[in-house]
Amino acid sequence: MNLKKMVGIESAKYVKDGMTVGLGTGSTAFFMVEEIGRRMREEGLSITGVTTSNATEKQASELGIPLKSIDEVDHVDVTIDGADEISNDYHGIKGGGAALLFEKIVATYSNKTIWIVDESKMVEHLGAFPLPVEVIPYGSDQLVRLFNSKGYNPKIRRQDNGNPLLTDSKNYIIDLYLEKIENPKDLATWLDHQVGVVEHGLFLDMATTVIIGTSDKGVQTIEVSR
Amino acid sequence: MNLKKMVGIESAKYVKDGMTVGLGTGSTAFFMVEEIGRRMREEGLSITGVTTSNATEKQASELGIPLKSIDEVDHVDVTIDGADEISNDYHGIKGGGAALLFEKIVATYSNKTIWIVDESKMVEHLGAFPLPVEVIPYGSDQLVRLFNSKGYNPKIRRQDNGNPLLTDSKNYIIDLYLEKIENPKDLATWLDHQVGVVEHGLFLDMATTVIIGTSDKGVQTIEVSR
Repeated sequence: MNLKKMVGIESAKYVKDGMTVGLGTGSTAFFMVEEIGRRMREEGLSITGVTTSNATEKQASELGIPLKSIDEVDHVDVTIDGADEISNDYHGIKGGGAALLFEKIVATYSNKTIWIVDESKMVEHLGAFPLPVEVIPYGSDQLVRLFNSKGYNPKIRRQDNGNPLLTDSKNYIIDLYLEKIENPKDLATWLDHQVGVVEHGLFLDMATTVIIGTSDKGVQTIEVSR
Repeated sequence: MNLKKMVGIESAKYVKDGMTVGLGTGSTAFFMVEEIGRRMREEGLSITGVTTSNATEKQASELGIPLKSIDEVDHVDVTIDGADEISNDYHGIKGGGAALLFEKIVATYSNKTIWIVDESKMVEHLGAFPLPVEVIPYGSDQLVRLFNSKGYNPKIRRQDNGNPLLTDSKNYIIDLYLEKIENPKDLATWLDHQVGVVEHGLFLDMATTVIIGTSDKGVQTIEVSR
């Protein structure tokens, strides 16, 4: 079985009747949402979904999953989402699908956060995957200059037609080609302080469970203790 | 003369031929922009303006001030803007006019920042003026709960029709009724780290000159050394 599908299905087992579930975005989360839809149809599972992107909202609606916004719920029981890179101490980079802002908002109010990935996403240090930074369009070229001056190799993410890609909040994404992030916490703090930066793709101390699909050892589940 | 008009006119003296000038927003900055327009017409002054809001962009265009976005200039020579409150160590609160995000972006890339206020804005400690925080609409009610739990007395700013006010970037403003901010730097750092907070109205270490209009001593100009 496709490794992404394998962990998507596995992660749906964490969803119990009556839960409020944060539904992640991306090619791996897609299978988790499909599996929750199947369990609702075939097993009578009843949940409330909180989506993290317009794309997942559309998928979940079509499957008949009742949805609420993060502002309509008291909290989220569990959020299940993919990740673009996970380090050996279980911090992550997210935002390859440009949904990092809503994903981080939903994860912030979740009791548990489960990341589902295939083995290719597990790395020793973060940074080979370009770090997405969501920025206000006004001033974005100035931020590119600032990031360049720090040696962060920034590139504004673009659509096929050459225009900057717009997030669901109509912001831009600047990808930082860092190769290796020596100190993720310091970088996250610095980015948080920059004017015009809305959010960044460093998700630190957020995952409580990591489910990894491997080709030779099947599904590996790691409970993260912090 | 109106104190706001007095400092608006005084501040325009800092504008020299050929400069790139950040044009602030609000009832005091209005007079500065008008005076720059007058000097262009009557004295042949030539400048490039960088605006901080749709409102100021409209005013400046009508006066014939050539405008560029912050991304089209290398840097800004001087930004002149109002402030809602200035402490005795010259930190400020801005955002009463909901333009704090673009104001902060432009100030960030300015060699000099001049604040122009009437004497009523000068305070010992910041915080009697409600602190504006610009936030992403998705998750804003969760932020209200978080701010409430910290005792920050948050209120989403609303239009007359009861709907949340939208900033130029289509975000919400949450005003924090703090009365007195004990440690502005700690609060700014905490706010910078909150997911969903785009920017806040604490402008720390930003003003290089403060021009105050007083009813009994006329215009007072303070050069801030840091």
